[in-house]
Amino acid sequence: MALQTWTLVDVEAASSAPDATFLPENGDGPARGCSVSQTVLRGGLREGVRAVEVNNGSFRFVVLPDRGMGLWKGWLGDVELGWKSPVKGPVNPAFVPIWEESGLGWLSGFDELLCRCGLESNGAPDRDDNGRLKYPLHGKIANTPAHRVDVSIDDASGEIAVSGIVDEARMYHNKLRMKSTVRTRAGLPGLTVVDEVTNLSAENGELQLVYHINFGQPLLDPGSRFVAPIRTLVPRDARAAEGVAAWDTYGQEQPGFTEQVYFMELAAGEDGRTQTLLRNAHGNQGVSLHFNKKQLPCFTLWKSTQAASDGYVTGLEPGINFPNPRSYEKEHARVATLKPGQTLRFEIELEVHATAESVSQAEQNIAALQGAVKPRIFERPMPRWTSAAEG
Amino acid sequence: MALQTWTLVDVEAASSAPDATFLPENGDGPARGCSVSQTVLRGGLREGVRAVEVNNGSFRFVVLPDRGMGLWKGWLGDVELGWKSPVKGPVNPAFVPIWEESGLGWLSGFDELLCRCGLESNGAPDRDDNGRLKYPLHGKIANTPAHRVDVSIDDASGEIAVSGIVDEARMYHNKLRMKSTVRTRAGLPGLTVVDEVTNLSAENGELQLVYHINFGQPLLDPGSRFVAPIRTLVPRDARAAEGVAAWDTYGQEQPGFTEQVYFMELAAGEDGRTQTLLRNAHGNQGVSLHFNKKQLPCFTLWKSTQAASDGYVTGLEPGINFPNPRSYEKEHARVATLKPGQTLRFEIELEVHATAESVSQAEQNIAALQGAVKPRIFERPMPRWTSAAEG
Amino acid sequence: MALQTWTLVDVEAASSAPDATFLPENGDGPARGCSVSQTVLRGGLREGVRAVEVNNGSFRFVVLPDRGMGLWKGWLGDVELGWKSPVKGPVNPAFVPIWEESGLGWLSGFDELLCRCGLESNGAPDRDDNGRLKYPLHGKIANTPAHRVDVSIDDASGEIAVSGIVDEARMYHNKLRMKSTVRTRAGLPGLTVVDEVTNLSAENGELQLVYHINFGQPLLDPGSRFVAPIRTLVPRDARAAEGVAAWDTYGQEQPGFTEQVYFMELAAGEDGRTQTLLRNAHGNQGVSLHFNKKQLPCFTLWKSTQAASDGYVTGLEPGINFPNPRSYEKEHARVATLKPGQTLRFEIELEVHATAESVSQAEQNIAALQGAVKPRIFERPMPRWTSAAEG
Repeated sequence: MALQTWTLVDVEAASSAPDATFLPENGDGPARGCSVSQTVLRGGLREGVRAVEVNNGSFRFVVLPDRGMGLWKGWLGDVELGWKSPVKGPVNPAFVPIWEESGLGWLSGFDELLCRCGLESNGAPDRDDNGRLKYPLHGKIANTPAHRVDVSIDDASGEIAVSGIVDEARMYHNKLRMKSTVRTRAGLPGLTVVDEVTNLSAENGELQLVYHINFGQPLLDPGSRFVAPIRTLVPRDARAAEGVAAWDTYGQEQPGFTEQVYFMELAAGEDGRTQTLLRNAHGNQGVSLHFNKKQLPCFTLWKSTQAASDGYVTGLEPGINFPNPRSYEKEHARVATLKPGQTLRFEIELEVHATAESVSQAEQNIAALQGAVKPRIFERPMPRWTSAAEG
Repeated sequence: MALQTWTLVDVEAASSAPDATFLPENGDGPARGCSVSQTVLRGGLREGVRAVEVNNGSFRFVVLPDRGMGLWKGWLGDVELGWKSPVKGPVNPAFVPIWEESGLGWLSGFDELLCRCGLESNGAPDRDDNGRLKYPLHGKIANTPAHRVDVSIDDASGEIAVSGIVDEARMYHNKLRMKSTVRTRAGLPGLTVVDEVTNLSAENGELQLVYHINFGQPLLDPGSRFVAPIRTLVPRDARAAEGVAAWDTYGQEQPGFTEQVYFMELAAGEDGRTQTLLRNAHGNQGVSLHFNKKQLPCFTLWKSTQAASDGYVTGLEPGINFPNPRSYEKEHARVATLKPGQTLRFEIELEVHATAESVSQAEQNIAALQGAVKPRIFERPMPRWTSAAEG
Repeated sequence: MALQTWTLVDVEAASSAPDATFLPENGDGPARGCSVSQTVLRGGLREGVRAVEVNNGSFRFVVLPDRGMGLWKGWLGDVELGWKSPVKGPVNPAFVPIWEESGLGWLSGFDELLCRCGLESNGAPDRDDNGRLKYPLHGKIANTPAHRVDVSIDDASGEIAVSGIVDEARMYHNKLRMKSTVRTRAGLPGLTVVDEVTNLSAENGELQLVYHINFGQPLLDPGSRFVAPIRTLVPRDARAAEGVAAWDTYGQEQPGFTEQVYFMELAAGEDGRTQTLLRNAHGNQGVSLHFNKKQLPCFTLWKSTQAASDGYVTGLEPGINFPNPRSYEKEHARVATLKPGQTLRFEIELEVHATAESVSQAEQNIAALQGAVKPRIFERPMPRWTSAAEG
């Protein structure tokens, strides 16, 4: 049999698989060396969280169905993807106080390589006219468990997939369903995330979506550089403006470093495809994101190079919006409206570079995308881009 | 042996039964065909929720001890009780943000056939003088797990019971205990809920209680009708007033339909017993509630015939109060005071009608209760009934 | 082998021990009769909470790793330590709404013999300038699960220890780690808690810490007395001032009793060591706390002698601060600052007195500590001590 499938979670069938490792039927076929393992984590804040580890023979990564199909960490040889959060995750959503009045409770669960900010809202906390928290930091999807999870290994092609369905829905509110599939193939140095967000409602629905993709040490080191084809770059606020001259490089660990955030429009090919790269100081390790600007027109770079113990990290964040407060994004038409039954599709490829050649090739690709486009780098926050720039 | 009992949950004994099915000892006795099964649900938002399914040979239903002894769904042949909520429940209370500042977080857990609103408070969100959320929508009891759960099958009489004890108690606050028993008998087309609420405190306690009993498709269809012996009916607000001419019938799915709510005093027999009926368009399926007006003097009808995907549903809601904000109900003496040790008892019978004859008989019973009483149907919200009518 | 160790929880290894009892290898050695048992509790609000029961042959007690290494109850022959809370705990932190807008949600999880209030904050709820809850009652540590738990039995010395590591940490906020060890020895009528709080951050961290150690019936009875070497005593508020004449004795159960709280500076030996005693009316049962005033300079006595059903209880509370709102304590220099990597150590010994002789000996010890120091008992709240005394 070519394609084997296993169901890990299916609430309709009231079933949940015990911890297990799934292997290709034909151990000598194209899926040789591949496996998918489910472990239910125990203890501390991670009690009860399912970790689904995919190993394609050279690249390993962990999918977290209970954290909105986030990706926890990844490993390719020496290259480790992810970061060391002050939070010992992955955190069971039951322990994350996203409705803490500060609006920042989401941070109590934040330790992933890739987590989604959305679906109804993301960005900085936003309040209603009475000052009541309406949209907490980065929304709910990263703390919503998938109610259906499937795994497949295709013995013929070596393809592996983990898919999950997560609903962000309640009566009298938005009813969005995300079907997320994380795919890789035997030996591939990376993975692809394909998310389809469907409006289950007979009324219009609204969507914000930012992919918060985070890297720390050792990949991120002093002298690391972010490389991307830039059309326009805007510092989010005065603090980011301070660092705009060195916006694309990373310094030493600096205790007390206040985050710097840059909003960008990237250049892209005619088909909309574009690429960004994070490379280390030596240029012999890196990671690229490939995505389509037609799907994800906004790009945010988050630099937070505090001490390692406080979370030395950068976030590469393609999205349909910038992480301003939702009301600001709505005003600037960066909230998507989905008609009843409508589905929007988002695809991001994460490619790991384990050699100087691979890093160099990525830089050449990005240079080609940049081509004759002259980057406009603003030195201060600009209206329509960032709420900090408004009167 | 006539009466068999099993303990599913007993925190005193630190015990919790594994998934199991309980059967009458004598397979050919009066309890023939009866069973009670416990399943701990897994995955998504329902992770860890105990589902106790009772089958009396013809009628099946599911009790949810971890959701305050709510009833999830029921089935009698073709007749399905319950509704299709946008929420994929039953939801573990750990995932329900009832303290979300909007006060509406309760909706994130709402998908039952029968859930209780209470015990200290229910109704619309209510705030203190500083604008802080004091009583979130519908209170806490539906998201409080039972700490003791027992099951019994009586081989002699065919009686089956599931009982649970749920405390809503904390230091310096109300200390109420609800002992709930859901009973049925072999072959009976329905069940009876008996709740005893006791004030555990040496000080007075306060109680609000509304039974939110909800029906959707296919039982609820366009042309369905609500039938009850009416003394007085008051639309809750201007929106309900718009629909008062057709208050007792249901229309097609209507995307974006805004809920309409009617408050009533019902007619009843001298003993206080009364009955309400929901019947489908063809009059060949329906469900009756039997209860005592002396226990549950207020009746609320909730109509929410949005599209199926958004929750086409109606709620029949006997209560000791109307679901206005708690402070309004307190002002109008619809909050019960329980003396130290005092117990109040509430009983609701849910009878399923699977034939036109049975529906017709229910209509005749209700006509008899109506008798010579002339219903007063107000066309607009009235003071003392609804907070929307107050200056 | 002398020292045996077992790991109950280790999130790094994704491991969590099944329910088990651990015994000394040599059943006839000094650890004769000792055992440590782990049970994961099931049902109600305690679903999933690990209870680790230590039995040293004469004294038994229960450690709760998932509730910030709190102690649930203890037993020495007839003497029961702990109290009967209106809450049926121990409560899984996932069910405790500490961010409820009242700021009092912590009470929904409060039923322990010993729980910590901290680490970033404790005391009465505190709000920011916008009136938003910033520091909920008593902070987060009591509702944070340990991510590493170890048990040891030393066959040579008869020593038993349960240790746990609990982090209160998140990005852009405090990052404190508490390593807590609860120790006892075969036959010892008590236990010692040693907590080491380390600032994991490269920036300064801030710490508040109060040990909320609670006793109820039958140990606490009418005529019980609190005995301590007093330098200064200040009633917290007008209500406490009402009772200052009898501040050290306990009355009958009194329904509706409003709590009375006294703040103290104790006398101590030159090494800082001091002792407090709670003794019953007959003086034949009691419990002492031994600790060091250099570590824990503030002492709070909480009297709450309501009816048994409402929680007849007293709290003996050594701390580095008084449980005023955090901003008040900060203003009065009772918030500790920890430099990067700095560790503060706290040790409390809990000694059970099961005989009149033992109680009497404790009274003599305390009299010696009091020595020539003349207690200053203020009759009303004093500035700098309690926020109730400020303009």
